[in-house]
Amino acid sequence: MTGIVLGAFEINGVNLTSQGLWAHPEQHTVRYTDLDYWVELARLLDRGGFDFLFLADSYGYPHLNGETPAVAFEQAAEIPKNDPMLLIPALALATDRLGFAVTSSSTYEAPYANARRFATLDHLTRGRIAWNVVTTTATVVKDLFGAERLIPHDERYAVAEEYLQLSYELFEGSWEDGAVLADQRRRIYADPAKVHKVVHHGRYFDVEGYFNCEPSPQRTPVIFQAGASPAGLAFAARNAEVVFVQGRNAEAVAEQVRTLHRLVEEAGRDPASVKAIAGLSAVVGLDRADAQRRLDDYLSYVHEDAARVYFAQMTGIDLAALAPETEVSSLSTQQSRTQLTRFDGATAAEAFAEFARRGMREFILLGSGEQIADEMVDLVERTGLDGFNFTPFVSPGSYRDFVDRVVPALRARGAVPPVPVGGTLRQRLFGESRLPGTHPAAAARHRAPEAPQERA
Amino acid sequence: MTGIVLGAFEINGVNLTSQGLWAHPEQHTVRYTDLDYWVELARLLDRGGFDFLFLADSYGYPHLNGETPAVAFEQAAEIPKNDPMLLIPALALATDRLGFAVTSSSTYEAPYANARRFATLDHLTRGRIAWNVVTTTATVVKDLFGAERLIPHDERYAVAEEYLQLSYELFEGSWEDGAVLADQRRRIYADPAKVHKVVHHGRYFDVEGYFNCEPSPQRTPVIFQAGASPAGLAFAARNAEVVFVQGRNAEAVAEQVRTLHRLVEEAGRDPASVKAIAGLSAVVGLDRADAQRRLDDYLSYVHEDAARVYFAQMTGIDLAALAPETEVSSLSTQQSRTQLTRFDGATAAEAFAEFARRGMREFILLGSGEQIADEMVDLVERTGLDGFNFTPFVSPGSYRDFVDRVVPALRARGAVPPVPVGGTLRQRLFGESRLPGTHPAAAARHRAPEAPQERA
Repeated sequence: MTGIVLGAFEINGVNLTSQGLWAHPEQHTVRYTDLDYWVELARLLDRGGFDFLFLADSYGYPHLNGETPAVAFEQAAEIPKNDPMLLIPALALATDRLGFAVTSSSTYEAPYANARRFATLDHLTRGRIAWNVVTTTATVVKDLFGAERLIPHDERYAVAEEYLQLSYELFEGSWEDGAVLADQRRRIYADPAKVHKVVHHGRYFDVEGYFNCEPSPQRTPVIFQAGASPAGLAFAARNAEVVFVQGRNAEAVAEQVRTLHRLVEEAGRDPASVKAIAGLSAVVGLDRADAQRRLDDYLSYVHEDAARVYFAQMTGIDLAALAPETEVSSLSTQQSRTQLTRFDGATAAEAFAEFARRGMREFILLGSGEQIADEMVDLVERTGLDGFNFTPFVSPGSYRDFVDRVVPALRARGAVPPVPVGGTLRQRLFGESRLPGTHPAAAARHRAPEAPQERA
Repeated sequence: MTGIVLGAFEINGVNLTSQGLWAHPEQHTVRYTDLDYWVELARLLDRGGFDFLFLADSYGYPHLNGETPAVAFEQAAEIPKNDPMLLIPALALATDRLGFAVTSSSTYEAPYANARRFATLDHLTRGRIAWNVVTTTATVVKDLFGAERLIPHDERYAVAEEYLQLSYELFEGSWEDGAVLADQRRRIYADPAKVHKVVHHGRYFDVEGYFNCEPSPQRTPVIFQAGASPAGLAFAARNAEVVFVQGRNAEAVAEQVRTLHRLVEEAGRDPASVKAIAGLSAVVGLDRADAQRRLDDYLSYVHEDAARVYFAQMTGIDLAALAPETEVSSLSTQQSRTQLTRFDGATAAEAFAEFARRGMREFILLGSGEQIADEMVDLVERTGLDGFNFTPFVSPGSYRDFVDRVVPALRARGAVPPVPVGGTLRQRLFGESRLPGTHPAAAARHRAPEAPQERA
């Protein structure tokens, strides 16, 4: 198993979470349509012992007061953006151990097609795949899919819950272990007695039939989720194995981790079967002052207008249109509160200033490799976090600095394994390739009718 | 440009079109879940000058009289089957020139998501992608997607026509040429004046918004189609660039090619902008008798029950349940007639015997490499075909024989280029990366409002 969990946060586009930084001279993301760019990055991450590459996604793009502002195109704020799932097979071929987490929405992808894609990826990656489950809230996406209405926030989780339940039935319930014999000599591929029809007639979905895919190494992909609302946290506690927690500082993050652990236990699961991670960046320098100078240089590229429309896209709230002293915690939105939660305790003006600089990062660490490694170990102790989603300022430069300068220091401290771990992603994170019996997916497994028992 | 067009016909599963042959000792398809298997195959095809790997697909599996017969699982007849699209990024990484055609259904994939996947693939493959457009007819798939009704056959083409129209708007109409500057120094990524909202409110689809993806090398992927009904042929004539034609022999195929050319011209397109191909296998031996012995050995593995349920899956017709002397041309079906067309002129008994042996092949050629090359050249002359979708009996063995023994003979005859052609797939097939102005996709391109003209 891994020590501190290390993910790399990416999108298949030009600009990550700090709007404007795509234009920094050290930034190579303008190569995002080039497979070679991604292969180089994935190999670097694999060499550096990263557990997974996390590919965020949404069909959405900025939309403010009924239109997409010109700055979104000028600064490539979430548009253009390619499908991230299609990077994974190539990156799996180019790497030996790196896991891959990719976002797919329970609101707009057909459950059967989605399950077939993830099962295929689990085969092709030899069990290195994770599914970041999101619900989709944006009006702009509704219009791209011709949907008739936006589903209200809490109902979206009811849809997602049924979507996952159905996915578990497909992943775990259609083909029993041992169904596939693949015996060319005896001329029998599968045992029909061990393949079962999924019959799901729910409130939102109707699926009846066999799953196309034979059992893959992990069956259900590792489930990622970022929920901050009560409905989202409850959903994560029931289903997720890796959870993104948000907070304005270490104390707020620690509180979220405690809440998550409590909810996981209440859901009948072992808190050790869930990893909590948060967004982190590291700027490496000769010392803190040197790193600060590098950070200031990166942040001099922040584009505030682009940050504003990006924030509005993700939260449904235009911070610049609010009175500066408005408390973020008082704001309500039809969309996800996940990104707002990060700024609870701040005013609108503070949140905007912080967001433009931090984007979706909880922590920005500065210093030498040793200093950053020490801070990471310290943060894990103070917050109860299991690890971090590393979020670069420039790519691949930020990753290279981290791999070459911070990872050796983490290894020296025993905080990550000296040699990267292989096997399936779930094995790497939790020691087992299959979900434990306490996870709801286990209930979807086929159970043979019990033999009649004789009375004692 | 290429000479005789060469495709390789595959599915992401265990058994191709000759049911039972998965168990032959030379057959390696039981490795289909292993990316390395596909990488080896793609490299072999690339080396052999194949223009493309064609990946057929359907969510369907055999279903007869209300259930899936045990033989379907035992003989892996169309089940299990993984998503084929996800092979392509890895195979693009492993090859330099090979194109990739993949099936996607206009009945069950959301148009916006589908267009984003193909545009992403066009980027990642550097323009080597093609889309095989199918409509889906099977009840079994309807039940996997919870659809409320089967769309009648001809209406499916009306849906497909609107689906393609909408896809052209996304591929060609949202981003103008030159919209992307990607200028880091001037800090401008795209010119907002050159990015346009797609507004499509049709009979079947409503999509309003910007396309996520910036222009890719081919924009619209090369369009493949196999239509045999009048509605299907008309659809192909309007939209397709590579068309599969069916026929029981060279004369029937020649007739189909003539019909296609006529319809293409009637649709206002140049017949030279459409390639007609048919299924072909080659069994190479020292001479014809030796090749015949090899073929007999392969065919000794044919599993007739599996062939029966596979045929019924694809056509909706159970040949074994008909009177043997029934004329195939008299049969009607709610599903596609494409595979039935292949046996027009035969009785049910003849069609079944032929199908079990031939599967979806028009031609099976036997002999030395030279003999087969001569026959291919002769077939092209007699039928007007532009090329073939090579369909192996065993994989990769059939491909290896073809590449090592037939391709050199084709090269010696000037029937294929001495060195495989590179560039985009459309360039390779037609000399240009973009669709010509006579194709309906061209009408979807953005045209600037004309400047007011002064009177002469």
